[in-house]
Amino acid sequence: MAIQPVRTRLSIADLHASVDDPALTSMTLLNELAGRYPEAVSFSAGRPFEGFYDVEDLPRHLRTFRDYLTKEIGLPLEQVRRTFFQYGRTKGFIHELIARQLEVDEGLTVDPESIVVTTGCQEAMVLLLRALVRDTRDVILAATPNYVGFIGAARVVGAPLRPVREHEGGIDLEDLEVQIAAARREGLRPRACYVVPDFANPSGASLSLADRIALLELAGREQILVIEDNPYSLFRSGDSRVPLLKSLDEQHQVVHLGSFAKSAFAGSRVGYIVADQPVTSTGTAAADPVLLADHLAKLKSMVTLNTSTVAQAVIGGYLLENECSLRRATAREAEVYAGNLATVLDSLTSVFAPTPGIPRDVSWNTPDGGMFIVVTLPFPADDEMLEYSASKFGVLWTPMHHFYAGTSGFHQARLSFSVLTPEQIVLGIERLGELVRDQRGKWPAEAART
Amino acid sequence: MAIQPVRTRLSIADLHASVDDPALTSMTLLNELAGRYPEAVSFSAGRPFEGFYDVEDLPRHLRTFRDYLTKEIGLPLEQVRRTFFQYGRTKGFIHELIARQLEVDEGLTVDPESIVVTTGCQEAMVLLLRALVRDTRDVILAATPNYVGFIGAARVVGAPLRPVREHEGGIDLEDLEVQIAAARREGLRPRACYVVPDFANPSGASLSLADRIALLELAGREQILVIEDNPYSLFRSGDSRVPLLKSLDEQHQVVHLGSFAKSAFAGSRVGYIVADQPVTSTGTAAADPVLLADHLAKLKSMVTLNTSTVAQAVIGGYLLENECSLRRATAREAEVYAGNLATVLDSLTSVFAPTPGIPRDVSWNTPDGGMFIVVTLPFPADDEMLEYSASKFGVLWTPMHHFYAGTSGFHQARLSFSVLTPEQIVLGIERLGELVRDQRGKWPAEAART
Repeated sequence: MAIQPVRTRLSIADLHASVDDPALTSMTLLNELAGRYPEAVSFSAGRPFEGFYDVEDLPRHLRTFRDYLTKEIGLPLEQVRRTFFQYGRTKGFIHELIARQLEVDEGLTVDPESIVVTTGCQEAMVLLLRALVRDTRDVILAATPNYVGFIGAARVVGAPLRPVREHEGGIDLEDLEVQIAAARREGLRPRACYVVPDFANPSGASLSLADRIALLELAGREQILVIEDNPYSLFRSGDSRVPLLKSLDEQHQVVHLGSFAKSAFAGSRVGYIVADQPVTSTGTAAADPVLLADHLAKLKSMVTLNTSTVAQAVIGGYLLENECSLRRATAREAEVYAGNLATVLDSLTSVFAPTPGIPRDVSWNTPDGGMFIVVTLPFPADDEMLEYSASKFGVLWTPMHHFYAGTSGFHQARLSFSVLTPEQIVLGIERLGELVRDQRGKWPAEAART
Repeated sequence: MAIQPVRTRLSIADLHASVDDPALTSMTLLNELAGRYPEAVSFSAGRPFEGFYDVEDLPRHLRTFRDYLTKEIGLPLEQVRRTFFQYGRTKGFIHELIARQLEVDEGLTVDPESIVVTTGCQEAMVLLLRALVRDTRDVILAATPNYVGFIGAARVVGAPLRPVREHEGGIDLEDLEVQIAAARREGLRPRACYVVPDFANPSGASLSLADRIALLELAGREQILVIEDNPYSLFRSGDSRVPLLKSLDEQHQVVHLGSFAKSAFAGSRVGYIVADQPVTSTGTAAADPVLLADHLAKLKSMVTLNTSTVAQAVIGGYLLENECSLRRATAREAEVYAGNLATVLDSLTSVFAPTPGIPRDVSWNTPDGGMFIVVTLPFPADDEMLEYSASKFGVLWTPMHHFYAGTSGFHQARLSFSVLTPEQIVLGIERLGELVRDQRGKWPAEAART
């Protein structure tokens, strides 16, 4: 008689700690909540506006890209076919078009060879963190509150993050210096600092030109890299435009992360990284350094190989049809976001207008663009309150403390307004007003402090 | 005057060790060599046959999938659009079709909820290894010679691999037991064993039905998981078909990795993992376990988020157009591979026929399918010899020692024959014969031993 195999027993305690990370587990709960209260107005969903999507665009983009390969590049049929179907260049095949876009939209000239096309910006973060964290001494600094995707990338790679304070004007440069010094005193090696310089997710904060220059000076002095993640600068209009950190970078200090999630479409999972840093080899002359991009490509070959060819071709076609300008391509979306932001600010001002006898206990920041604003409430804005808000008042938002790894932001809610109509926004802010009226006076004054 | 930023200095010694892994660096060199000798017959390229690809298939697949969502699933337009364009379900949206394919082609019934659609099989390996390696005690066993992609996934995650011997009949089960015991004696925790049960890359070896059953018994006894990577079983014809390990798995011992690289197309970067293992949480009743697939999805949300929607839709359309049978879809390719294998074996037999006065010093294995065979040569088959072979005789192959992490296989060459025509194969083996004649007698007898 055959021996019966024994049923395999697995416990979560046997799995890598990142599967049980509290911040990420909370995000799963938030999604669940959105599913349970489909009628609620959701200021939680950070996904892009979807009103202009048309499925028929996708086959057209593919054909546009095929025609580009055939006519503009002059590839023979066999190589066109190979481009679409085979494993390809690990660094991707739309790097020239991406370089053109950076030139057209940002006036930024980069060597296309320094670009690695990645499976979304998420993979770009994973590759970069994997490259920079060699051993237990390496730490990464990050302006906090922090984009949850970056926290995730750090967790899965095992990269230790050290928070740096952020104020309305973005990362606090004094605190950055303090944190670098503190890490060094502990025998650690600060390797890089992560910032979202325009309309950060979740805070909406932006960095001034002067602070951008000061950040690069500081990074140069301290010999750390600056990781620029900038999916929202696209939605900064005319006068208010500030150069990318990468545009100010004359010394290869900035690694620039790019995304098509907020321009073409999020599902494509196409992003990129510009990593033009020369890396010297031990034992060889510094005369022939390899680009950091090429080392990241090696890591990419171990994580996902090349980025999906059809996804790249679709994005390539999208870029070509828009003369490689994402600003041109997203003009309609930019208008929606700007209109929604104005509606949010107007609604907040009207719903939380000064009332005789009631102290002004609700405040918010006023970003001049992006997809997010932060409201400070006179009571704890935690998961429990969120569920109450959803079930009782039909409005969803995101507790900010998740973006602080649970160390701050306990009275703050992130409102994202990218997928809502103006009517939904007005209704949602009214409902938020009802929640505030319901909670007022239930909390001692000290609990009302952030 | 502004302070000049200091140019950032980076050395490879500051980057994660995996960027400098010898096995993977060698693979880069091999690709370079193929580029430098474009006229050489290349038995190096392991990519699938490309003669039947047609770029026009891609837009059609997209439309087929859109029609399926609309007509078969009955999704309203808005949700169809969301499926194509937005961030979606992290586990993917073609899981039902993949489950149907496993049923149709393999008679294997799996819960679609246990499937995670991944950015190629490469990401599936990364997620699984990341999940299983919690701390420095965890080790993964792997039949060796080893698929280079699995080595890469282990390196990037930092998962220690312990080699297990392989013979013509696949993994050596006695050695597996020995290695498990040895690891335990060192205080380590063997977590899983990686095998490619059909026509392994690089060896071409296959595991018999009896050994598959014995492997599952052993794994159950030893409480380790079996990682089944099986992209080539598809090309096993009629009589010679053996059940997948997953088909024999009644106790959730097998995690099954799937790929569309060898069926639909490699560039899609769509693969999947079947992980139906229940995982209990610490502190909660075992009554409500979560599937390992759901934990892998959490990790996936930190690595690439969802798998590219266009790539999934293209594969979905491909499956639908082929009634969810990959065997049906790849019938023509299967014929090409079988024909090429026969040509390789015939050519080897004829080129290395017994010659009076010369000892039989070249041998090879005889897999009955797949894309690879291994030739043992009477001289070192290293990178230097490969370059000589390419420049002097116009034939490329892959040194096997790369797949042994440099511990064995020093006289062996992998020949892959998936993209060659019969004429190229005949010419290539003749050239290999010339190399052997050139090298004969140049090496002492002891160097001629593998």
